[in-house]
Amino acid sequence: VVVVGGGFAGLNAAKALRRAPVELTLVDRTSYHLFQPLLYQVATGILSEGEVAYPLRDVLRRWDNARVILAEVDGLDLERRLVHAAGSDGRRHELPYDSLVVSPGARYAYFGHEEWERFAPGLKSLEDARLVRSRILGAFEAAELDPDPAERSSWLTFVVVGAGPTGVELAGQIAELARGPFRRGFREIDTRDARIVLVDAAPLVLGTFDPRLADRARRELERMGVQVRLETAAAGVDGRGIDVRLADGSHDRIETRTVLWAAGVQASGLAAELGRAVGAAVDRAGRVAVGPDLTLPGHPEVFLCGDAMSLDGLPGVAQVAIQQGRHAGRSIAARAAGRPAPGPFRYRDKGSMATIGRLDAVCEIRGVRLSGFLAAVVWAAVHLTFLIGFANRLVTMTRWTAIVFAGRRAQRAVELGRREVRGHAP
Amino acid sequence: VVVVGGGFAGLNAAKALRRAPVELTLVDRTSYHLFQPLLYQVATGILSEGEVAYPLRDVLRRWDNARVILAEVDGLDLERRLVHAAGSDGRRHELPYDSLVVSPGARYAYFGHEEWERFAPGLKSLEDARLVRSRILGAFEAAELDPDPAERSSWLTFVVVGAGPTGVELAGQIAELARGPFRRGFREIDTRDARIVLVDAAPLVLGTFDPRLADRARRELERMGVQVRLETAAAGVDGRGIDVRLADGSHDRIETRTVLWAAGVQASGLAAELGRAVGAAVDRAGRVAVGPDLTLPGHPEVFLCGDAMSLDGLPGVAQVAIQQGRHAGRSIAARAAGRPAPGPFRYRDKGSMATIGRLDAVCEIRGVRLSGFLAAVVWAAVHLTFLIGFANRLVTMTRWTAIVFAGRRAQRAVELGRREVRGHAP
Repeated sequence: VVVVGGGFAGLNAAKALRRAPVELTLVDRTSYHLFQPLLYQVATGILSEGEVAYPLRDVLRRWDNARVILAEVDGLDLERRLVHAAGSDGRRHELPYDSLVVSPGARYAYFGHEEWERFAPGLKSLEDARLVRSRILGAFEAAELDPDPAERSSWLTFVVVGAGPTGVELAGQIAELARGPFRRGFREIDTRDARIVLVDAAPLVLGTFDPRLADRARRELERMGVQVRLETAAAGVDGRGIDVRLADGSHDRIETRTVLWAAGVQASGLAAELGRAVGAAVDRAGRVAVGPDLTLPGHPEVFLCGDAMSLDGLPGVAQVAIQQGRHAGRSIAARAAGRPAPGPFRYRDKGSMATIGRLDAVCEIRGVRLSGFLAAVVWAAVHLTFLIGFANRLVTMTRWTAIVFAGRRAQRAVELGRREVRGHAP
Repeated sequence: VVVVGGGFAGLNAAKALRRAPVELTLVDRTSYHLFQPLLYQVATGILSEGEVAYPLRDVLRRWDNARVILAEVDGLDLERRLVHAAGSDGRRHELPYDSLVVSPGARYAYFGHEEWERFAPGLKSLEDARLVRSRILGAFEAAELDPDPAERSSWLTFVVVGAGPTGVELAGQIAELARGPFRRGFREIDTRDARIVLVDAAPLVLGTFDPRLADRARRELERMGVQVRLETAAAGVDGRGIDVRLADGSHDRIETRTVLWAAGVQASGLAAELGRAVGAAVDRAGRVAVGPDLTLPGHPEVFLCGDAMSLDGLPGVAQVAIQQGRHAGRSIAARAAGRPAPGPFRYRDKGSMATIGRLDAVCEIRGVRLSGFLAAVVWAAVHLTFLIGFANRLVTMTRWTAIVFAGRRAQRAVELGRREVRGHAP
């Protein structure tokens, strides 16, 4: 069995195969499982990379039937059942499989404007998080130095595109940064003058949440000073600002040095390639329409999970990926043991949650709606439970305590002379 | 007062001026004070960047007389008393001063072979630490994948050049990595086969320590499997190995993909420029001969501290920088208050210490020599004391506990497709 990708889907597929009579190879282009739900905290200086990136080797350490390979998968041969990969040793490798799980993840979609990416980084990888952090903190640093009032206000303007959980959490954290004890370090600027704009083409923030919670989140963001501009779409991004198109078709421009992207999803090209090879439907986001058991049409030995597949309009969230990975793993295990397959995949929505400010969140768990402090506590408990590693939990709790009681963000390294810091110098 | 550099010297100069009737500007090209003595732990996966990089703004937050500027100093005008700097806002800035403290730090010296640097990174900045970590962990990953036995052994060979504290600690930690629970994650290789070679042109490791402790350290390293090759100088480094010259003049070659550099020191070019401008002696390492009060000859308003100066053969260690920064700050404070200057700088050697293995260290404190477990405890206590920030101390303790009891290193992110990972692909 070969599993492509060590994200939520891949890791859970591997876990389901732990005791199965198979030889498992997990291939990833990074050495770690990334806990994406907390990546925004790395980008805003609360957590360090180690807390959200757990070594895959440590997860599979005690499993005799599993190995991990650091390699980039760049082709699949469905006929000969081979995975082609460029290894970290600089060589090409061919990995034969009987069963295959494809869960390579996704990145943000720029609606056909890939050229916006360099001005508006997304938040999908550790490197992204480092870049976003440098952009945010570097903008405050530059504002402190820049003598020109117009430039200063452009440095102090932050635009977040996309009002899903990541966008909401990012905007909320920038507002916290600007309002918290962080501001006392500056002399020339009052960081509370920072203008944070959250832009989305949809008419709601947190569109997948219950409308009452979504409304609660929007009001709370506004109370924190975030300008929420809904029914407003990005129409152009450059190094000096962003053009937006309003609902009535008119355009507006926001002068800013910092645009952050949290909108749309584009599946890894690997999935689309597979889909086209077998003539399956591939949607605009590059996701392949799979059978009810998550397999590629005509190839019961190939499973597509998470952002790689489309099925019944399931959203691209961690819970779907986790449950799909587990389902694919169990199906393969059953087949290997000669047991009947577990049948079609059924998604059990366990709820969704997002933090807004420091001690504020919105949660929706099995129909129960929570908001405010209690929701923040539930949010923290759930995220600590899903983090891997006892020391990571302890460190994360320490960092959260430091934030709550002292507003201290420890991860604030900015270096001069790197592209990240200079903002978007051509 | 302008202080150039937020390292040990600059930070302590600023601290000594906290209550002085002066306006203080601290200029650095990074936003943080780097705790260099623990940088090797970032490079070997124990600590994260946040623990060793404390925001300068947080240090100076409550001081009404001080400000921090993120800028690169690239020139000094002694006549007009101006510091020229390229700011993080993309503009040029001129900072006037009455008193100036120059402590821009240093980097490793490649003995005139700067071209070795890309094959043999040093360990002076956070970015270096990330690069070194990627090289070390990436080499194990590549060894796991590479089918060629000769290549595999080249990936599993690690050469550290320079047997001062950093080199000894780095070699010891790589040995710990290879021997610890880390190894259980690999299937194709036994990480204990890793060959770690510590090379130095001098006849001793830890040359500045008491010879008995130095000998103890060498024996302990050898017991851990590190090959210590003394009186052996680097004669050439490329992407495939290192040529060394032995004491008898003969040459030898070690095939390796990972050479790490911890030898020699080259002061920032700023100091040498200053020295030449006033006709002062500048040594081969770029350090300027200063007066007994640390001032530039003929310029009692300019202090040079740490790696920027040479005086009485003082070594380039943290303790010297700390005490010199404090001395410069106090001298300026006394002058501003109209009090007599504190006179010539006098160094008080508080001792030196280095860790070897997991629970092993050598310490020399005011003439008392310690080694083994007790020394490791003293080492840990001293380093925790000097770390800035309560949460950082707590997190560091957690990470150390995880290492001691479980051998767990949390910071192990390696990504494919970056120069760091591929090793030294041309």
